Order: sequence, then C-alpha cells, then structure tokens
Amino acid sequence: MTEQSLETPLTRLLGIRHPILSAPMAWVAGGHLASAVSEAGGLGLIGGGYGDAEWLERELANAADTPVGVGFITWSLKQKPELLDQVLAHQPGAMMLSFGELAGFAQRIREANCCLLAQVQTVEQAKKAVDEGADVIIAQGTEAGGHGANRATLPLVPAVVDAVGSVPVVAAGGIADGRGAAAAMMLGASGVLMGSRFYATEESLAHPIAKAGAADAHGDDTVRGSVFDRLRGYGWPEPYTLRSLRNRMTDQWHGDLSHLEDNLTEERERFQAAIENADFELAPLIVGEAVDLVDRVQSAQEVVEGVVAETTALLQKGAPNVSLHSGGT
Amino acid sequence: MTEQSLETPLTRLLGIRHPILSAPMAWVAGGHLASAVSEAGGLGLIGGGYGDAEWLERELANAADTPVGVGFITWSLKQKPELLDQVLAHQPGAMMLSFGELAGFAQRIREANCCLLAQVQTVEQAKKAVDEGADVIIAQGTEAGGHGANRATLPLVPAVVDAVGSVPVVAAGGIADGRGAAAAMMLGASGVLMGSRFYATEESLAHPIAKAGAADAHGDDTVRGSVFDRLRGYGWPEPYTLRSLRNRMTDQWHGDLSHLEDNLTEERERFQAAIENADFELAPLIVGEAVDLVDRVQSAQEVVEGVVAETTALLQKGAPNVSLHSGGT
Ligand SMILES: Cc1cc2nc3c(=O)[nH]c(=O)nc-3n(C[C@H](O)[C@H](O)[C@H](O)COP(=O)(O)O)c2cc1C
Ligand SMILES: Cc1cc2nc3c(=O)[nH]c(=O)nc-3n(C[C@H](O)[C@H](O)[C@H](O)COP(=O)(O)O)c2cc1C
Repeated sequence: MTEQSLETPLTRLLGIRHPILSAPMAWVAGGHLASAVSEAGGLGLIGGGYGDAEWLERELANAADTPVGVGFITWSLKQKPELLDQVLAHQPGAMMLSFGELAGFAQRIREANCCLLAQVQTVEQAKKAVDEGADVIIAQGTEAGGHGANRATLPLVPAVVDAVGSVPVVAAGGIADGRGAAAAMMLGASGVLMGSRFYATEESLAHPIAKAGAADAHGDDTVRGSVFDRLRGYGWPEPYTLRSLRNRMTDQWHGDLSHLEDNLTEERERFQAAIENADFELAPLIVGEAVDLVDRVQSAQEVVEGVVAETTALLQKGAPNVSLHSGGT
Repeated sequence: MTEQSLETPLTRLLGIRHPILSAPMAWVAGGHLASAVSEAGGLGLIGGGYGDAEWLERELANAADTPVGVGFITWSLKQKPELLDQVLAHQPGAMMLSFGELAGFAQRIREANCCLLAQVQTVEQAKKAVDEGADVIIAQGTEAGGHGANRATLPLVPAVVDAVGSVPVVAAGGIADGRGAAAAMMLGASGVLMGSRFYATEESLAHPIAKAGAADAHGDDTVRGSVFDRLRGYGWPEPYTLRSLRNRMTDQWHGDLSHLEDNLTEERERFQAAIENADFELAPLIVGEAVDLVDRVQSAQEVVEGVVAETTALLQKGAPNVSLHSGGT
C-alpha cells in the first residue's frame, strides 16, 4: 500500500497527514464522522452548533481517543460561553469559530494550547480574525452549504492569502473533489474544508433520506436565504443566510419573508411535521452548490482517500487539458 | 526571448496561443482592447452590448486586421438581429452570446464558419447551449463583474465540464491573475475569460477615474443587484443582475427597489448628471469580486503576458504551499 500525503503549512501546524478538514456541521457532524476523518489523515470537526452540552458530551465520547476538533457558531457560543470550557477540558485537536467576533474566546483557546481556526466570509473579517488571534483562516465562499455570506470562494481565497501574510488559509465552499482541492491549492490555500461532501457519508448524522437526496441533487437547485432560520426560530444576525436545496418551502417563502412572518405559527407546525416525517420537500436538506459533485454516500475514509488521490494526481500530472510549451524564438 | 504557450483544446479550436479571453464588456471593450489581447496571443472580444451599429462598425475598424471576436447580449440582439449579419460580414474570430437562448442565431453563426462561444450561468443552461450548437461553453460565476446570475465559478466549472462531454469549457468570474487561471485549469477548464482585470487596462474604454478606482477597490465592496439597470432603463430579464462596486446609489436603493421606482424620474436625472461628471459615488463602476487582485492599470499585453507567466509557473512548479509525498509503508 502506498502512503500518500499532501504536506502544507496547515498539516504541519495541526500535525495531520492531509490538509482535508470536515466541517463542524450543526447536528450533522458528530463524533463518528469527525473521528473517521481524523483517522483517515485529515482533521474532523464536531459541530458544536447552537450549543447543547449533553449532545456535545456524547459526541466527544463517540470520537473516543481520536484527536478531533470542535466548531462553534460564535454568536451562539456567546450565549453559553461555559461550553467552551467544557470542550477545552477534552483537549480538542483544534477549535473552530465561525460567524462572529473572536474576542473573548481567542485567549482562552490559546491558553489551553489549542489551535484556533476562524471561518470568515470577507477579506476584512480575515484581517480582523488574525488580529484577534486566529492561527488559521478558513475563507468561506457563498456557494457553501449551510450558513455563510456573499463572497465567492475563487476570488476570496487569493485575496485573503494576500491579506494575512504567513497565516495558513483554508478554502471552504464549493469544494467536493480533488479538482476543487487542487484549484484551492493553486489559489494559495494550505487546505480545504468540506461540508456538503461529508454530509453524504455513512458517518454523518443527516437523515438517510437526506443523504440519498444530496447524492441525487443538482447545484443549480440550491438557494441561500432565511426561510428555514425563521421557521426554526434561530436568531441569525445579518448578513448570514443559509444555503440549502430549494424545495416547496423555499419556493413559497424565499421571496416573500414578510408574509412568512404573518403565517409563522401555522408554518412552524407544518415545518415541524415535515421534520418528523423526513419530508425534504418542506424540511431543509442543507448542502451547497458543490452537491453536483456528490453522487453517492460513502464512508468518510473513502472520501478523504479519494480526494487526496485526485488532488495528488492533478498536482503531479498538471491540469488535464493543458500542455505547456516554452521554447526560444 | 522565451515564447511560452499554454496549449489547450480551446487554443487549438480558436487557433490562438494562450487560453486567455477578454470579456465583451458593453461600452468598455472596443477594438483597441480586443486587438491588443489578440495580438498578445489570447482572443479579444468586442462588446456588442446593447447593439449600436455605428459604435460596432467603428470598433471593428479599430481592431483593423487583427482577428478579434464579438460578443452580444442575446436577449438584446433579438431586438436587432440584423447586427449579427453586420458583424459576421467582418468574419470575426469568434462570436460570443450571453444571457438568453441561442436558437435562431446558432445556425447563422455556424453557416458563417464562425466559432460560437456561449456564456451560461447554470449547468442546465450549459447542456441546452450545447444542444443548440455552441462550440465552447463559458461558465460564468456570480462573482463576475457585470451581468450574471447566482452560481459561483468554483463549483460551477467542474459540474459543467462533467455535463458537456468534449466541449471545451472556459471559466469566467473571479479570475484576475495566474492563480485563478491555474485553479480554473485544475477544475477542468480549457481557458479563462476575464472582464474586471481588462477593465483596468490602458486600452479599455472605461473612464480613467473608473480604471483608477478599480485598481484601488476591494472585492468586499461589490454588490449584485438591479439598481443601475433600473436607472439606465435596460430591460434585463430575470434572473440577470449586475455586479458593480457598491456606492452611495446602491447603498440607498439596493434593498429598496420599489421606492426607487417611485422616485425614478428624479433619480434618473441625478444618475445622468453623475455619469456626465464621472462621479462614481453615484455612477456605476462595473467590476466583480476579483478586483482585489487588480492593483494597477496596465496595457492589455502586460496583463496577458503576466497571467500566462504566472499560470505557467504554477502549473510547472505546483501549488505554492504543497509538498507531495508518496512512499511505501
Ligand atoms: C449541513 C451543514 C451544516 C453546517 N453547519 C455549520 C455550523 O454549525 N458551523 C459552521 O461553522 N459551519 C457550518 N456549515 C458550513 C461549513 O462550515 C462549511 O463552510 C461549508 O460546508 C463549506 O462548503 P461546502 O458545503 O460546499 O463544502 C455547515 C454546512 C453544512 C452543509
Ligand atoms: C464592465 C463589464 C461589462 C460587461 N459587459 C458584458 C456584456 O456586455 N456582455 C457579456 O456577455 N458579458 C459582459 N460582462 C461579463 C463578462 O463577460 C464576464 O463574464 C465577467 O467579466 C467575468 O468576471 P470577472 O469580471 O470577474 O473577470 C461584463 C463585465 C464587466 C466587468
């Protein structure tokens, strides 16, 4: 067996073999997914999400002795800051914070000798996160599944690389195979973070119907908006919105949020019922534009190894359609 | 002098040296820009835009004997289909159609023995364009300057590559240097089309103040919307919107289009005055998110040669932060 590795400043910093991170997807990325990704040579992150102490404890236990990271939604963590200590007590492989200011958390993470990954959506946020103590910047584009904002990965990553000096940059949003990973590396990234691709793994906690739906879905059919956040009653601040597959629910309310407010009570009932029935015509199937590149449910190990093999081949052999010529004239 | 070239299926099809296209930017890409890009080894495209026979004739004359292409806005060309014959009579190096169905035009272009490039914004549109007779698909992401739609370049390009078989795919949107071009090649593209980067060239017809503004601007400060189309009275159909720098005009009306309608007469006067005064706090400076990577006004030749040199170096030496290892275990 050949042992490949893609060494970058990120892999050296985190002590991992491959610069492949699985996203801390709320409710979806538990200990089994995170540990499988870490076992395969990447870094798996448990989705601390909206903060549930019991859920976190159980999922950290599910990761057992494998080093995994934990990600929090920063504005939500502010409401339950004690969760950070709970997680740090487990000596996680890394902490990731997204969607809000690091101030107040960065120092505690540093004092725990833990690496701080900050996911940002603009160049300005990237600079600020570095000032606030981030060790790694994850530059997330609008094509990402889940919450995010407005800039796109391809132009965001090189601009962030130029802005943050020697801090390693990880690309997130729209990457689901070795082509995307190799492209990210060309942009100057030191790693990639994938959510949608890991959503459709055996270890993900997504509903089996949702995983199969992701494997069948088209990137043309995602939408970024606030319908599901209003239905779930999550208090997401501006400018963050959710990208999911469009379905009957988003078709009805995406362009008409004020009427959704008028009908919130009934619509929440309909929504709850849909969740209980795993009816993804009304419930959210949360993946991003890269879902075109996801065509089956695999183990997390197969995903990591497949992406590493594809990326390595592209970086070794060069771009598929290009022949380089240089000769004197 | 070393004569580099990046050969791809696109360069073979078009008979050009480098897979670098300049966008047919309405009012901005005239004959001087297009011919300078072609002279430098790429393919320059004149912006046929909203269709002005006199302007077109002059700009085709400005390109003189250099082979250049011409791009039209498809829904607008439908209103003045005779312009296509006018252009085809000049035997352009290629025709590019964006924003609408090819049907009705594809056959005439084919009969003129001219290559048809179709710019699309979704995977479905790409498949349809191939069925309708496109020879090349330009997959344009939402980060692009100018008009476009909602999908982002990084996940769109590989999905289009997978969908269109052997038809060459060109990546557009968010690319302004060799990093973006090398990334696009990793995604399976056979070329790149750049608008924002060529906006800030000596040969572009953009106002000098606007070019300097582009060189100073930040990608975080662009916005995609319909404010300027309403002010200009251009009848853009859904889902097409314009990405430009945000300024006082977009800050005021972007989230409030219905009030803009109520004030359209006065606002149009203010807008016209701003255009005449080259006041880009109110007039549109049309660039996309890649503007972070544009830091000065150069000649089109310098742009083409610089991007080719950067792309070649990246494809030759590999991604900047990655060391590949493979060894038996
Ligand atoms: C189902 C799902 C849930 C997510 N939840 C979170 C979250 O709780 N916290 C977070 O920082 N990011 C979350 N994200 C965003 C990811 O961190 C990441 O930016 C994104 O998945 C990358 O884009 P991709 O989906 O195209 O791979 C989520 C993504 C998905 C798909
Ligand atoms: C100032 C400007 C005007 C544009 N006008 C047109 C046009 O008339 N027709 C067209 O097909 N595309 C037009 N575009 C879009 C380009 O074809 C191309 O998709 C885009 O510039 C690529 O993204 P980039 O700006 O990030 O390079 C325009 C772009 C800019 C920046």
